[in-house]
Amino acid sequence: MAITRPIGFRVSTCRAQIKPSGRPDFCVLVCDPPTEGGLSRFASAGAFTNSSVVGAPITIGRAWQNAGSKPLRAIVINAGNANAATGSPGVEDAIATCKATANELGCDPSEVLPSSTGVIGRRLPIDRMLAEIPGLISTLARGEEADLEAANAIRTTDLVPKQAHRELELDGHVIHLGAITKGSGMIAPRFGNPPAPQATMLGFITTDAWIESGALQTALNDACRRSFERVSVDAHTSCSDMAVVMASGHAHHPRIEAGTPQYEAFAAALRSLCTQLAEQIARDGEGATRIFRVNIHGAPCESSAERIARFVVDSPLVKCAIHGRDPNWGRIVTAAGNAGVHIDEPRSSLLIGGVAVYRAGVPLELPKDHPPLVAAMNADPVELDLTVGDGPGNAWMMGCDLSAQYVKINAEYTT
Amino acid sequence: MAITRPIGFRVSTCRAQIKPSGRPDFCVLVCDPPTEGGLSRFASAGAFTNSSVVGAPITIGRAWQNAGSKPLRAIVINAGNANAATGSPGVEDAIATCKATANELGCDPSEVLPSSTGVIGRRLPIDRMLAEIPGLISTLARGEEADLEAANAIRTTDLVPKQAHRELELDGHVIHLGAITKGSGMIAPRFGNPPAPQATMLGFITTDAWIESGALQTALNDACRRSFERVSVDAHTSCSDMAVVMASGHAHHPRIEAGTPQYEAFAAALRSLCTQLAEQIARDGEGATRIFRVNIHGAPCESSAERIARFVVDSPLVKCAIHGRDPNWGRIVTAAGNAGVHIDEPRSSLLIGGVAVYRAGVPLELPKDHPPLVAAMNADPVELDLTVGDGPGNAWMMGCDLSAQYVKINAEYTT
Repeated sequence: MAITRPIGFRVSTCRAQIKPSGRPDFCVLVCDPPTEGGLSRFASAGAFTNSSVVGAPITIGRAWQNAGSKPLRAIVINAGNANAATGSPGVEDAIATCKATANELGCDPSEVLPSSTGVIGRRLPIDRMLAEIPGLISTLARGEEADLEAANAIRTTDLVPKQAHRELELDGHVIHLGAITKGSGMIAPRFGNPPAPQATMLGFITTDAWIESGALQTALNDACRRSFERVSVDAHTSCSDMAVVMASGHAHHPRIEAGTPQYEAFAAALRSLCTQLAEQIARDGEGATRIFRVNIHGAPCESSAERIARFVVDSPLVKCAIHGRDPNWGRIVTAAGNAGVHIDEPRSSLLIGGVAVYRAGVPLELPKDHPPLVAAMNADPVELDLTVGDGPGNAWMMGCDLSAQYVKINAEYTT
Repeated sequence: MAITRPIGFRVSTCRAQIKPSGRPDFCVLVCDPPTEGGLSRFASAGAFTNSSVVGAPITIGRAWQNAGSKPLRAIVINAGNANAATGSPGVEDAIATCKATANELGCDPSEVLPSSTGVIGRRLPIDRMLAEIPGLISTLARGEEADLEAANAIRTTDLVPKQAHRELELDGHVIHLGAITKGSGMIAPRFGNPPAPQATMLGFITTDAWIESGALQTALNDACRRSFERVSVDAHTSCSDMAVVMASGHAHHPRIEAGTPQYEAFAAALRSLCTQLAEQIARDGEGATRIFRVNIHGAPCESSAERIARFVVDSPLVKCAIHGRDPNWGRIVTAAGNAGVHIDEPRSSLLIGGVAVYRAGVPLELPKDHPPLVAAMNADPVELDLTVGDGPGNAWMMGCDLSAQYVKINAEYTT
């Protein structure tokens, strides 16, 4: 069990013929209020793509967030169609799914968030979807089977379903976190407002913790920055990325408030959960055969380290070298040099799996068949440690190799 | 004839065993002063990569430029080794080639510019190179054969040599421009100081025009921005990109000064020459089977239009769609949305080869087998016209498709 492992959550899945394959593609995740305290113990938080062109669900999600609306009761999710670049008719379609779900649940439509992934630029088969909603609500369930069905329903080009969960104890009470996620191509999530954005990744997280809303949002923002935003499959940020966490308040510990040790423990568990999900996404990157992690050390600050790391994991030349197990490290150093951040060459070094290939700005000229280097290039993940100076900024990013299969998948996606 | 078509230029080529293939890899291009006026009629200008990690030739070129040094007498060029990430020993190697060339020509080493392309992170075989320089200088020649040998010598993964030339008449006198260029992978040239950099392309341009140095540099900067900087093969800016123009002053027209109609005519010819070279580079992009051009209309300004265009041509998803002749235009619109520039969706539209697929923010939902759309996706180049609002900013960029061959080339490059 993952997404419904925390107490207070139910999910159900169906086939609405949105995916051409006819596989399950439509699901609803619902949060039920605890008997004691009820809706007042709910909290939810969302992170939405910072792209300038967004899907209708993102438009609705941003409005929900900006209006300081009530916590979410439900998320209605489809795969096979992103409902993006569909203009105001697309927004009306998304709202119709929220209204139908709210109607069944007896809540306000603003308490339901839509989420979509798939082909861009096509209207949803809204009539079929609306017809399925009563059935979805009447079959809501908890358990391993229900969770796996939902994890499968949200897949697009993903080869495997992706789930994770965490437990932590606070003040003698066990708290659960659960999640399903999807993402394989169009993966380079950027949430919030960093200077320049770059999949569709969807992440749905549940917890039975009782937590103050602002604290939950802060914890989510922090977790996204250090997990989902640190993976990139193809440097193409999606118009549909979203990560949403719903807290049911069913656990019996005192409410988690920002700045407390309890908050830190919860935030750490959330970040750990999201990191596991993010790594699952990188590993299932379209066409990926292996993953790699670049650790940047000594940058002027964390955000410049993140920027350098992004240029390395997004370089097609670096990705091809990883694929070919080729220690052509000049590509790594030059990719870093393109980030627009000063590189202090005399203080720069690069280790591949702990093997130094470049030190103090000078190549060590190891033979390509140097056994430790061959072993390092055959590892999975391949670990790159690049020092760019003596500043305090460190960051990591994770990417996957670029294979001929990626090209095949993406040259044939809609046709 | 191309590079030695303008009067006053000679070139020669040899094999210095820098390329593992043993093919010609080392050449010298020399500018000879006119009898009347001599060196005082020389001018030269350079544009160098804006990457933070640069090859030794770029370090020397930037210093030459910043010192306001004398115009160049010669350029000494090798392929097979980029002399990059080689620290101060690499700079010393490059200076040694300049000194040896200057010694043979009887000029100052600061009048000789080095240029290198190839594998990064290895020292040059400097002894072999120095031993070849006297022979290179003694065999300098003009003519079609010499030009083609030089265009071949500077190739790395390029499948074809690249040359171009232009003629224009100023005040009754014919002026020639000639050029050789190379570039296939690690192609996303960014010169100067734009906000964020992103191959190795080398461009060597000759002219027998008599032109004031500052005017020549301005004309080169303008030409680079609207030609080389508008092609991208793989979004990875090289540490070694350079475009250099040498003017011999052999033509008999009055000196070209900035701001005059003669300057405008010369600058237009230079821009046209560079655009042809840039298109040759895109077409010879590693693994490329076709090229495409994206024209952005209605952005807030030219630089924001350039930024949007760059996000489109650099998206692996767009490149794969072009490869697969798949009108999956949602990828184009979302790539544009990642540039960090506001997209006015209700005023947005996209034409593929003149066929509207998206208008006023709403998809037209043409069938994929719509014959005009099929024809547009089969064109070469594929022409994309994306309007993002009603602003005054327009720009184009040219890219190539992403094929399995690109992966093959780059997974096996050094090994």
